Parts: sequence; C-alpha cells; structure tokens
Amino acid sequence: MTPTQQAGRVTVAGLGPGADALVTPEVTAALAEATDIVGYIPYVARIAPRPGLTLHPSDNRVELDRAQTALDMAAQGRHVVIVSSGDPGVFAMASALFEALETRPDRADTDIRILPGITAMLAAAARAGAPLGHDFCAINLSDNLKPFAEVERRLRHAAQGGFAMAFYNPRSKSRPHQFTRVLEILREECEPARLITFARAVSTPEEQLSTVTLAEATPEMADMRTVVIVGNEATRRVGRWVYTPRSVPAPTDAE
Amino acid sequence: MTPTQQAGRVTVAGLGPGADALVTPEVTAALAEATDIVGYIPYVARIAPRPGLTLHPSDNRVELDRAQTALDMAAQGRHVVIVSSGDPGVFAMASALFEALETRPDRADTDIRILPGITAMLAAAARAGAPLGHDFCAINLSDNLKPFAEVERRLRHAAQGGFAMAFYNPRSKSRPHQFTRVLEILREECEPARLITFARAVSTPEEQLSTVTLAEATPEMADMRTVVIVGNEATRRVGRWVYTPRSVPAPTDAE
Repeated sequence: MTPTQQAGRVTVAGLGPGADALVTPEVTAALAEATDIVGYIPYVARIAPRPGLTLHPSDNRVELDRAQTALDMAAQGRHVVIVSSGDPGVFAMASALFEALETRPDRADTDIRILPGITAMLAAAARAGAPLGHDFCAINLSDNLKPFAEVERRLRHAAQGGFAMAFYNPRSKSRPHQFTRVLEILREECEPARLITFARAVSTPEEQLSTVTLAEATPEMADMRTVVIVGNEATRRVGRWVYTPRSVPAPTDAE
Repeated sequence: MTPTQQAGRVTVAGLGPGADALVTPEVTAALAEATDIVGYIPYVARIAPRPGLTLHPSDNRVELDRAQTALDMAAQGRHVVIVSSGDPGVFAMASALFEALETRPDRADTDIRILPGITAMLAAAARAGAPLGHDFCAINLSDNLKPFAEVERRLRHAAQGGFAMAFYNPRSKSRPHQFTRVLEILREECEPARLITFARAVSTPEEQLSTVTLAEATPEMADMRTVVIVGNEATRRVGRWVYTPRSVPAPTDAE
C-alpha cells in the first residue's frame, strides 16, 4: 500500500430494487461506514444524510467519471460507496469501475469490494411467481453501448435456445421505436400465447405488475422503470401467478 | 377465504448464498413470524431453533412433497416458510410450489409470498469482479429434470449469442461425465482464452474462487457447491479482478 492510498476503499453496493427491506445487512453496514456516497441522482437520494457523510450525486451516462472520482477519493483515504440500484454487477456500476481501473494503473492497488444486491428481474419474478424458474437470459435492451443488431442477435438465440428472458432498460423516450422492434422479433420467434410480464418499480409505492400474452403486448406497456420478463414455451399461469416449470420434456418440433 | 384456510400462509424465502449478512431484512422478518420451516436439510439447518417454531427438514429431490406439505399446513392456519438457498425463483423451490399448487385446486386460495434472495451467481460474480456485467444466461446443468440434449442446445445458443453464462449444479457424483462434455461443447463454441470462474460456497467459510482460461479448465474444478461463470468474448482481467465491459463493438467475424 503506497502512502497516497492510506486506508481508503471503494465499495460498489447494490441497493436492491427500492424497498429498504430488500437491502442486505452487508450493504447497510457499508453505508454506515462510508465517508462518501457516489452514484446516479435517484440512487444517492435513497441514502439518508448524516454528519461525516458526503453525498456526490451525478447524472446518468457519466459512469466512468463517477468511477474515476471514487478511485481518486479512495486514494485520499476516503471510504467511498458507489451505489447502484439492484445488483451492481447487472448492467450497473461494477463493470464501469473496472473499466476505469483498467485505465488507471496508479490506482491498481485500490481496496475494492463489490456487494451484491437483489437485482430487478429477481424481485419482479418473485412478485409474479416464478417465471425465471428454469434457464433464462438477462438482456439489456439499451443500445447506448452496443449496436441494436447485437440486441437482435441475442434475442433470437435466447428464443431459439428455449430460454426465458428478462429485459432491462426496455424503453426510453430517446428510443421508443426499439421496443416495438423487440416485440416484432419475439413474434417471429415465439408463439402468440407466450406470456410476458411487465413489472414496474417493484417494491416501491409505484409498483405495477401485469402479465399478458405476446399477442396482447404493446410497446407502451414498458418504460425505463420496467423490467420485462418473457417466459419460455412452458411458462403458464396458476391462479394469479405465472411460473415456469422445472422440468423440460425432450425437445419436439412444436413451436 | 374458506374456513379451512384461516390465516395461514406459505412464504418461499431465499436465504442467499450462505452468509447472514446476505439475508434480506424481509426474509429475516418472515422467519421471525414463521411457525414452520420447510426445506432441504442443509438449508433448514441454517435456521436457529426457537420456541413455537417447528423445523421440517427433508431430503433433496422431494420438492413437490415438500410443497404439498407446506400448502396443507397453511390450510391449517400455520405460517409456513419454505427456505431455499440463494433466490427461490432460480432453480429452487418457487417453481416447485406452483407445480404443486396446480395439482391442488383445493389450495388455490392459499396466501403465498415469494421473497427474493441473493442468488449464487450474483454473489459469485461480485467476488470475482463483474463477469456478468453484460448480457448473460443462467443454465442449470443438472439433467435430473431435462434431457442433456436440451442443456447442449442451450449452451450452444448462449455461446453463439455472445452471452456470458452462469452454470448452476455443474457436477455431481452421479453424473461426473457431463461437466466434461459441457467443457467440450464450450471448446467447440468459444476461443481457448475465454475466462471461466469457479466459485465454490461463496460467502461461507469454505469459499474458494479461481479463474482460469477455457483451455486450462478441468471438470474436477467444479462440484455441486460450485457456480461456474463463463465470460463472453470481451471478458478480461484487471489486476485480481475479472470483468465484462459494458460496451460491445459492432459484431465482427472474429471467433
């Protein structure tokens, strides 16, 4: 440990989907020991101010700057917690921190911890029943950081492989047409009766949950606070619940 | 609510990968209110006995019996918690409960709650860095409930789709040869330098973590307490960490 690094550290912590009851004790302890909280504005807003704690909210799409700032503060001996919604390793700040670390050999010895959280798709699945009860994929539908052709390629492989799917960032004001295209691709690959759950803001007061068939699904059922879960061929309803059985019979030619 | 159902309920709760610090407050509260705990022996062993609480440990592979028992106890007014390791919706008891419910119209009105937990792959990913930082799949390698041909089909689609992958139940004494075959399939689909992390018993005193290349991976690196994480083509090391970048360039012909 070099003199400039003292006892600082960077912790990347998952706050879960919204409710305090879904924040792990490990994360709560890290927040209690922090000197600085770094993160996207709405996530930092979830942290209660207290003496000795500095909040550093920042805008969306500045993940690398945020990570650099955290590494620099840790080098000054600060205990920095970068907060993510859900799990920090699922389409969130953990990868951004390592991308930043790769460009900063002077910070290579930083004490780093990644603390898992309840990711949105699992909170949503629990509310709906067990739609991810068999093999599944998680796909970020945003094309901020990848070409949409890559999204399409993955959708088709996921469908053809018989996976259930969870979509993060399905739709935003800047790209409303893409989720329309996603539904078209799903309709080419899956039967019309395939079940889709739209789960918005799970575990918050704004929670909304609805399950429809692929034939009934429309683009405006999703927004950026929604996780979309597409079942596999066997996913079905029992009462108000949606679940995917654990068993798979031998493959057939049926769609 | 029929007279036989009184105020009973069935809660399916995820205990996370092992450490108490990874159990959500929501689950802790449910356990505190329970009259009965149902589950696989090692998971029930994690629950501290107390007056008024009956523990019902059962063997592996009796998931449906366990779920039936829980439904019947709830009908007698008991507050039953079915405990799962990790998240109950990921290759665990939530689907089994709904399968049981489907066969029991007399229990259709049961008050059911599914409480999410930290699933093994996300705890493992956090320890390793952020290997699931981009699109990924979760695959149960056990062929107890599906033909191995289905496992193979999914592996190939996951690899060809450019997904990172997390494998649950990679290897058991009764089918040691299958993980050998999984590695062969991966070698057909992925480049030899592909990174694979073997994460055993994360967050417990028996935790072990190692990352090797696909060329170096051997079947005995996994057992039933291991989660295996295969990166995508871009997954790389930075210092002692393994991570998958958030960005994907336009697809190329490169393997």
